Amino acid sequence: MITTDILIIGAGPTGLFTVFEAGLLKLRCHLIDALPQAGGQCSEIYPKKPIYDIPAYPEILAGDLTDKLLEQIKQFEPGFTLGERAETIEKQEDGSFVVTTNKGTQHKAPIVAIAGGLGSFEPRKPPIPQIEKFEDKGVEYMIREPELYRDKDVVISGGGDSALDWSIFLTDVAKSVTLIHRRNEFRGALDSVEKVQELKNSGKINLITPAEVVDIVGESKLTGVVVKQKDKENFILEADHFIPLFGLSPKLGPIANWGLEIEKNAIKVNNALDYQTNIPGIYAIGDVNTYPGKLKLILCGFHEATLMCQSAYQRIFPNKKYVMKYTTVGGVDGFDGTRKEAPKAVIKSID
Amino acid sequence: MITTDILIIGAGPTGLFTVFEAGLLKLRCHLIDALPQAGGQCSEIYPKKPIYDIPAYPEILAGDLTDKLLEQIKQFEPGFTLGERAETIEKQEDGSFVVTTNKGTQHKAPIVAIAGGLGSFEPRKPPIPQIEKFEDKGVEYMIREPELYRDKDVVISGGGDSALDWSIFLTDVAKSVTLIHRRNEFRGALDSVEKVQELKNSGKINLITPAEVVDIVGESKLTGVVVKQKDKENFILEADHFIPLFGLSPKLGPIANWGLEIEKNAIKVNNALDYQTNIPGIYAIGDVNTYPGKLKLILCGFHEATLMCQSAYQRIFPNKKYVMKYTTVGGVDGFDGTRKEAPKAVIKSID
Repeated sequence: MITTDILIIGAGPTGLFTVFEAGLLKLRCHLIDALPQAGGQCSEIYPKKPIYDIPAYPEILAGDLTDKLLEQIKQFEPGFTLGERAETIEKQEDGSFVVTTNKGTQHKAPIVAIAGGLGSFEPRKPPIPQIEKFEDKGVEYMIREPELYRDKDVVISGGGDSALDWSIFLTDVAKSVTLIHRRNEFRGALDSVEKVQELKNSGKINLITPAEVVDIVGESKLTGVVVKQKDKENFILEADHFIPLFGLSPKLGPIANWGLEIEKNAIKVNNALDYQTNIPGIYAIGDVNTYPGKLKLILCGFHEATLMCQSAYQRIFPNKKYVMKYTTVGGVDGFDGTRKEAPKAVIKSID
Repeated sequence: MITTDILIIGAGPTGLFTVFEAGLLKLRCHLIDALPQAGGQCSEIYPKKPIYDIPAYPEILAGDLTDKLLEQIKQFEPGFTLGERAETIEKQEDGSFVVTTNKGTQHKAPIVAIAGGLGSFEPRKPPIPQIEKFEDKGVEYMIREPELYRDKDVVISGGGDSALDWSIFLTDVAKSVTLIHRRNEFRGALDSVEKVQELKNSGKINLITPAEVVDIVGESKLTGVVVKQKDKENFILEADHFIPLFGLSPKLGPIANWGLEIEKNAIKVNNALDYQTNIPGIYAIGDVNTYPGKLKLILCGFHEATLMCQSAYQRIFPNKKYVMKYTTVGGVDGFDGTRKEAPKAVIKSID
């Protein structure tokens, strides 16, 4: 059982910044995210795209935003349960909550902060019979651990940035990389498309278009896929892995069944005070919540996380009065023993 | 008469970021600030001090924060009335407001956003008889325009960073610089203290300690100051300018008489909706406002500014429905004709 002060569901920008604000209050955090890495959409969907409305960043790539936030919270040593989806929540007799993931990992905390964005990103699955049977037995919808593919025969399908970028990346790892797409045209960053063209020309990527994977071959695990290519007979392509990359679509998912008040696929919160939900001790911050005038902007999530942490502190320590200190004045004391502080003024005579 | 869509009182971080969010809604802004430059406290009080809690900045100097915000809003061409304090407000028949400064500059806008921080920073004045008589006639409490001091004899008094840093700066501009402090010890950044020592040694700063200015000499304008130095007879020092730099203290000031609901020296707002005050069309954002759970943090001001702009848009265009577009998707169109946008994906065949 993982225990912490604030259990954060969702490791996007809002969830990550929560660690910082909690850390200033000496509260520890642990984050759960269905994606294999921190950053939420920013890392998974558009890491190379610029955001223009992060305050004091005239422009920042979404992936860099994640990196900066990870750097900012490092000294507060957050824990992570990645690649697992928060599934159930149970209130304990002592008032705390136990959250269990789809893989059975259990987490216990007095405070739960749902920073789930648009929901957990679920892969769009191709309409292949019995594909579920082969999940984690050769079929993966997301690349969690590239080393899994070392010296393997890998088939990727899809026509967007993910399919292009992972095909490029895996040429250095896998024994063979085959990219299958139902059109000849790919949609993505120009340099990615050009790089795939180049790797195809040099024989490092085996390109099959216009084509699709229509079936899977294998017994206990996948050993190949059936390819249907235009103007050809269907054929079997031997493979160790089949990775359909058809995009992710966000689903509120199991959280919808936690007894929270939901409105338009978002969680209602008390924005006049502390972004708490209808269940005391459970907060919802960032894009996952809703209230009058709500804007689904990253900068709003930062504010909501900050006020939420103050309220969480009061819940955990009902008899302590917290006096806020500005970081410029008080510095930042990390849980790892580091200290950041402004250079001190000296008092020195001049003679 | 200066006219604009949103008149912002206070050019600190919150006021500056308001220009960006308003600009996304195609609303123009003009800012009034009592200080001679944008940035509020960040620029005037602690430009060289680090802030650690700006989201995605593990550390940023307060002065750099101002620069980044100015860069971010540049394309929305904000207007500035600097070095003047907003004094009176009058509601017009058409529902708009006219705000007049202490120097008589008039501004008209349908929306007023008070982003006044802790108030306008008023200089602490030394207890010298009739000093008010010489204000702007040789006595200045803030350096607005360094060129005013070119080839002049300047007396600075004070023992902190401002006194040290301006003494250093003016040695390159003024005919002579005299620094007077009531102690031998100065309190400031180590390198500033050392630099003053060095300039004193090389004769570029005339240092008189422990001493204070006790009177002013002059008729229609200042021609000298009377110095009282320990163990000496009072003497007259000829000078063109006397600049007492004894710090600034924030005062809510004339805004307190605008008919707004005030609580603990801050303006009450409706935080459950749009940070509007009790006077429709006047908003208060950032450190100047108060509501249950309020935290006086820069990052909270950013959020408040953003929601406030949406509400202002609805007031100005009651019949238009604004559909928010993410900057990553929609880009940013400046009023200066510039456009920022994410690199477009290409659709390109690979063969």
